[in-house]
Amino acid sequence: MELLQNDLLLRAARGEKTERVPVWMMRQAGRILAEYRAVREKAGSFIQLATTPELAAEVTIQPVDLLGVDAAIIFSDILVVPEAMGLPYEMEEKRGPVFPKVVKSMADIDQLRIADPEADLGYVLNAIRIVKKELNGRVPLIGFAGAPFTIFCYMTEGKGSKTFSVAKKALYADPEFSHKLLQKITDSTILYLKAQIAAGANLVQIFDSWAGILSPTQYREYSLPYIKQICDAITEVPVTVFAKGAFFARKEIGELSCEVVGLDWNMDIEESRQLIPTKTLQGNLDPCVLYSSFNQIEKEVRKMLDAFGNQRYIANLGHGVYPDTDPDKVRCFINAVKSY
Amino acid sequence: MELLQNDLLLRAARGEKTERVPVWMMRQAGRILAEYRAVREKAGSFIQLATTPELAAEVTIQPVDLLGVDAAIIFSDILVVPEAMGLPYEMEEKRGPVFPKVVKSMADIDQLRIADPEADLGYVLNAIRIVKKELNGRVPLIGFAGAPFTIFCYMTEGKGSKTFSVAKKALYADPEFSHKLLQKITDSTILYLKAQIAAGANLVQIFDSWAGILSPTQYREYSLPYIKQICDAITEVPVTVFAKGAFFARKEIGELSCEVVGLDWNMDIEESRQLIPTKTLQGNLDPCVLYSSFNQIEKEVRKMLDAFGNQRYIANLGHGVYPDTDPDKVRCFINAVKSY
Repeated sequence: MELLQNDLLLRAARGEKTERVPVWMMRQAGRILAEYRAVREKAGSFIQLATTPELAAEVTIQPVDLLGVDAAIIFSDILVVPEAMGLPYEMEEKRGPVFPKVVKSMADIDQLRIADPEADLGYVLNAIRIVKKELNGRVPLIGFAGAPFTIFCYMTEGKGSKTFSVAKKALYADPEFSHKLLQKITDSTILYLKAQIAAGANLVQIFDSWAGILSPTQYREYSLPYIKQICDAITEVPVTVFAKGAFFARKEIGELSCEVVGLDWNMDIEESRQLIPTKTLQGNLDPCVLYSSFNQIEKEVRKMLDAFGNQRYIANLGHGVYPDTDPDKVRCFINAVKSY
Repeated sequence: MELLQNDLLLRAARGEKTERVPVWMMRQAGRILAEYRAVREKAGSFIQLATTPELAAEVTIQPVDLLGVDAAIIFSDILVVPEAMGLPYEMEEKRGPVFPKVVKSMADIDQLRIADPEADLGYVLNAIRIVKKELNGRVPLIGFAGAPFTIFCYMTEGKGSKTFSVAKKALYADPEFSHKLLQKITDSTILYLKAQIAAGANLVQIFDSWAGILSPTQYREYSLPYIKQICDAITEVPVTVFAKGAFFARKEIGELSCEVVGLDWNMDIEESRQLIPTKTLQGNLDPCVLYSSFNQIEKEVRKMLDAFGNQRYIANLGHGVYPDTDPDKVRCFINAVKSY
């Protein structure tokens, strides 16, 4: 059993008592830090950085040292899973991720493999091993993967989109195709998360970034069952489910065998506590609050903590921190949580 | 008093009894129709089309003839209001609207004028007059405007965005600036809607397209009060408020002095009826349903109508129809509502 010097996040996740509220930030390892930008520059590209374990490890640890967060999250991307299944992608500077080939037919699905984490994603697992060694028990390490529906969106649409209408068209036009692809993604994701845990991840988070584009009915059919499979399969460490925009599914997400539910800033805190009475909650400050004054940030953080209470709670933003945020404002957010 | 041959929409809006559910579609005048694309081609550009009253009138009426909808909606754009205030925009083919100059300072706001509808937006009013003449009472005509917060987003951000973080930064960093600009937009919008009504619009809809990016607290401060001013000012015809993504504000929107509340497809129908008990509801089929088979569309429409009931209800999609939708699928949707 690993001994952690700071295990606040894990205790909060398990619903145990904590002396203070733990805090970390989605996208904490990233463009907000000049120290990250220097390593990114050295790597040459985002994908180079993500696939070079020493460099990925270095930027993973940066926010622990530079911002004082209570957890590290492995620097990677949710789209490494489709890549490991045989569908490569590129990261274009302004456009974001682009898949030169997309999945359109049953034959396309048959050509994909179920990801073999050691063979196909060894660079992430090696990065985790380096991080664990260098962190040396200072804080827990969070592993992660995209929810199958969100990965499905990219694999069928081929790029980011406001509506993901190509992906949704597949759900309506061809349910059999959709379920088959979702299942293959799910099988890959379970193996991948288990491998991250074996390599040292202390908690894993499932990001359903595009949950909010589905109707409640479709969410119940095409996203929840696959997240459920993952939650049921991962018994080694706590699991966090963050389904952005799925306000309508909070009750059902709260009934999954996960330990933590992430909230975005649209979701009312009290109402969410009522809908999800048995889980630890995580979130949910609007990332734009970090554009306001130091005083205003402290005020908003106090308001948020008053509403969540200081137990069964992990402070975070309601989405990833925006890249143009002043690191001093980030520190203000983190310190305001710590000194609450 | 104008006599309409088909006044189902207006009676449903006013909460009066209707023999059947009225139906129309957001973006019904647009790229789904080959007949629209031909006129758009002739016009040369979207902005040319929108600013040429004869052509705008022609495409406004097309869906009445070609699709059999129960209302026309004037072909225009929510961004004509900032243009009329002195902030011009361009429509770029793939990128969408772009404002070469954005509003950044109090001095920038002072340079804007309150729109004078006859002088600055005469082309829309003339298009309305032509449509009214040509429709000759067949169906009602819907006028519209963006909600002040949504217009504010474009005027400060300068273009579409997934997060509108520049616009939201302004809300957090400079509330005084934000309220001042929102008020100027509101004053312009009230005059503009009143002019549309004077020109012949039988109902007006307020589109708060970016409502969903705000936290409940910010929505209450920066969007609702301005929509309320508009609802209070418009007493001549029924008003519809459609705030996409503002699931958290349904109760408050239901308490405005509007007649109809639009729902998107994330919003559960029964829950929305409970939250908004005194208004007519409009919506909310996922536009992607129109990608499925004819049978499936009919089934989904029946399910929707069963849930809404056939009174105090206007059938619509939960967002604008997607441009690559087959017009026959659109007709299937419309006929399924009519034959319910």
